[in-house]
Amino acid sequence: MQCFIALPKWVPVLAISFSAIGCSAAPDDPLSSWNDGASKQAIVEFVESVTDTAGPDFVPSAERIAVFDNDGTLWAEQPIYFQLIFVLDRIKTLAPKHPEWSTTQPFKAALEGDMQGVLAGGKHALLELLMATHTGITESEFSTIVSEWLATARHPGTGRLYSEMVYQPMLELLSYLRANDFKTYTTSGGGISFMRPFTEAVYGIPPEQVIGSSIKARYDYRDGSPVLVRLPELFFFDDKEGKPVAINHHIGRRPIAAFGNSDGDLQMLQWTCAGDGARFCLYVHHTDAEREWSYDRDSHIGGLDKGLDQAREDGWTVVDMKNDWTTIFPPKK
Amino acid sequence: MQCFIALPKWVPVLAISFSAIGCSAAPDDPLSSWNDGASKQAIVEFVESVTDTAGPDFVPSAERIAVFDNDGTLWAEQPIYFQLIFVLDRIKTLAPKHPEWSTTQPFKAALEGDMQGVLAGGKHALLELLMATHTGITESEFSTIVSEWLATARHPGTGRLYSEMVYQPMLELLSYLRANDFKTYTTSGGGISFMRPFTEAVYGIPPEQVIGSSIKARYDYRDGSPVLVRLPELFFFDDKEGKPVAINHHIGRRPIAAFGNSDGDLQMLQWTCAGDGARFCLYVHHTDAEREWSYDRDSHIGGLDKGLDQAREDGWTVVDMKNDWTTIFPPKK
Repeated sequence: MQCFIALPKWVPVLAISFSAIGCSAAPDDPLSSWNDGASKQAIVEFVESVTDTAGPDFVPSAERIAVFDNDGTLWAEQPIYFQLIFVLDRIKTLAPKHPEWSTTQPFKAALEGDMQGVLAGGKHALLELLMATHTGITESEFSTIVSEWLATARHPGTGRLYSEMVYQPMLELLSYLRANDFKTYTTSGGGISFMRPFTEAVYGIPPEQVIGSSIKARYDYRDGSPVLVRLPELFFFDDKEGKPVAINHHIGRRPIAAFGNSDGDLQMLQWTCAGDGARFCLYVHHTDAEREWSYDRDSHIGGLDKGLDQAREDGWTVVDMKNDWTTIFPPKK
Repeated sequence: MQCFIALPKWVPVLAISFSAIGCSAAPDDPLSSWNDGASKQAIVEFVESVTDTAGPDFVPSAERIAVFDNDGTLWAEQPIYFQLIFVLDRIKTLAPKHPEWSTTQPFKAALEGDMQGVLAGGKHALLELLMATHTGITESEFSTIVSEWLATARHPGTGRLYSEMVYQPMLELLSYLRANDFKTYTTSGGGISFMRPFTEAVYGIPPEQVIGSSIKARYDYRDGSPVLVRLPELFFFDDKEGKPVAINHHIGRRPIAAFGNSDGDLQMLQWTCAGDGARFCLYVHHTDAEREWSYDRDSHIGGLDKGLDQAREDGWTVVDMKNDWTTIFPPKK
């Protein structure tokens, strides 16, 4: 047990008050789901170096910014991005009000669960489905819809809630960083308003530390009260080159640590690790076909090709999910 | 002196360690530059109500979000917005590289210090001057330029540095709210990248809690290193209806307290005070022609007309600078 004040041993009556003055027994291992090895060692060495006030790599706590991609880094992303599953579920829910969808693409394919048909329409089709399900309602209404979906919808492969498809070792890593006075952000290609309803409860990341893609909104009045109406127009796409731009827009400081899993995160990692002083960049490599999924260079979802090469060239940490993690998902609730 | 742990009085040897375990003498009055009166009383009653865990208005600390306009609310804005003075100074600095400016409007007027001539060109002229001085360089370069200007440029009326043209009572208010576990943001019509270089040192507001107007940026490489290049294209104008939209985009929670001084802040105050539970909205009313400036309904800078009416209708707090504040600016350094 470590305390930040040394009390004389001859005052035993005070011992029972230790917990009230900020002392607590440190858990044996804050990264208990990480096997001992190069990845875990690199994480711990980095954190110890930037928090060592006497060392050359010390970073003041205000500058300890860590950014995490979401899909494939904090939660799973197979067989397709979970937000896309939400879109398809939402199309089915809204279909009775839109009889024309049964004969119009890409809605017809979506209603028939024909993913190939949806994808055949390309980005335009996806955007059309997205706008039909994500806009025309208020921010508050959308948040409620997402929360209800997250509380009930289950992953087609595992039967888990989507909030249970998160990576236990990454949850431990988030907590470990925060325990060392890091401010943790998620920065996702997914929607900022799609993530905020769950990030605080699941990741310990409050809404103001969520960065993501977004659509425009309009301040308006409904029934005498001000509302924010979600508009069918893209505001910002937070992927690839967009990630450093969005990080600067939201945070205004360059992170000192970045965590991703795909080429969509490459520029975020480049931007982070090009800064002065101690830096840490990490890729989660999906290598576990049994407990999760195995994919990288050729995957349509979460492809990791150029990033894998740069990680090796630049000495970034690459997590081998199969061998580095003792467990993938937290226990089912 | 209040401590969060009661130590037995018969252990005097421990008294010297009080400061090490989180005890400190509370200052007599955290709002010492505020005269006793309705404004100060309303602030204190609100803060005490939302922090009283046993009371009906208690708000968990994570939800204690307070947003502050900048120009005219945290620092002065006369005779023109300080960022506009920066623009004019910058035009003069850059002029030797642009001989064509001496014969082209609005640059000619700007170089001659002819403010009427600049304003005659309307918003288009201002935008042209803004883009000529704020873009084509990296975020890092712009930050350095702003910092150097703030360290040397002085207000034409008072001779003070612009960072000394801030309101002492508002600095105390920011500190008082933070001491009560509020998270304080500034949300300005001014540029997010223009404010970030000084908000932490001057207001105690870190870069990630600065919301403002912004231009687009592009991730690029220069000399082998990634940079963010500022583009001559508006990304978001954070004024009027834009303020609640930007607050939602950055914070994702509705604030419980909002502070402004002009009609440009009206929607932010409406949005804040329309939320459920205890809310606090405050207008700083510029009524002190001797110590600062006196203006409201008809002013081109910081006009306060509709806002003053709604404040009175809805019972928002309206600070009378002349009578509510014992001092306006902090001591000169």
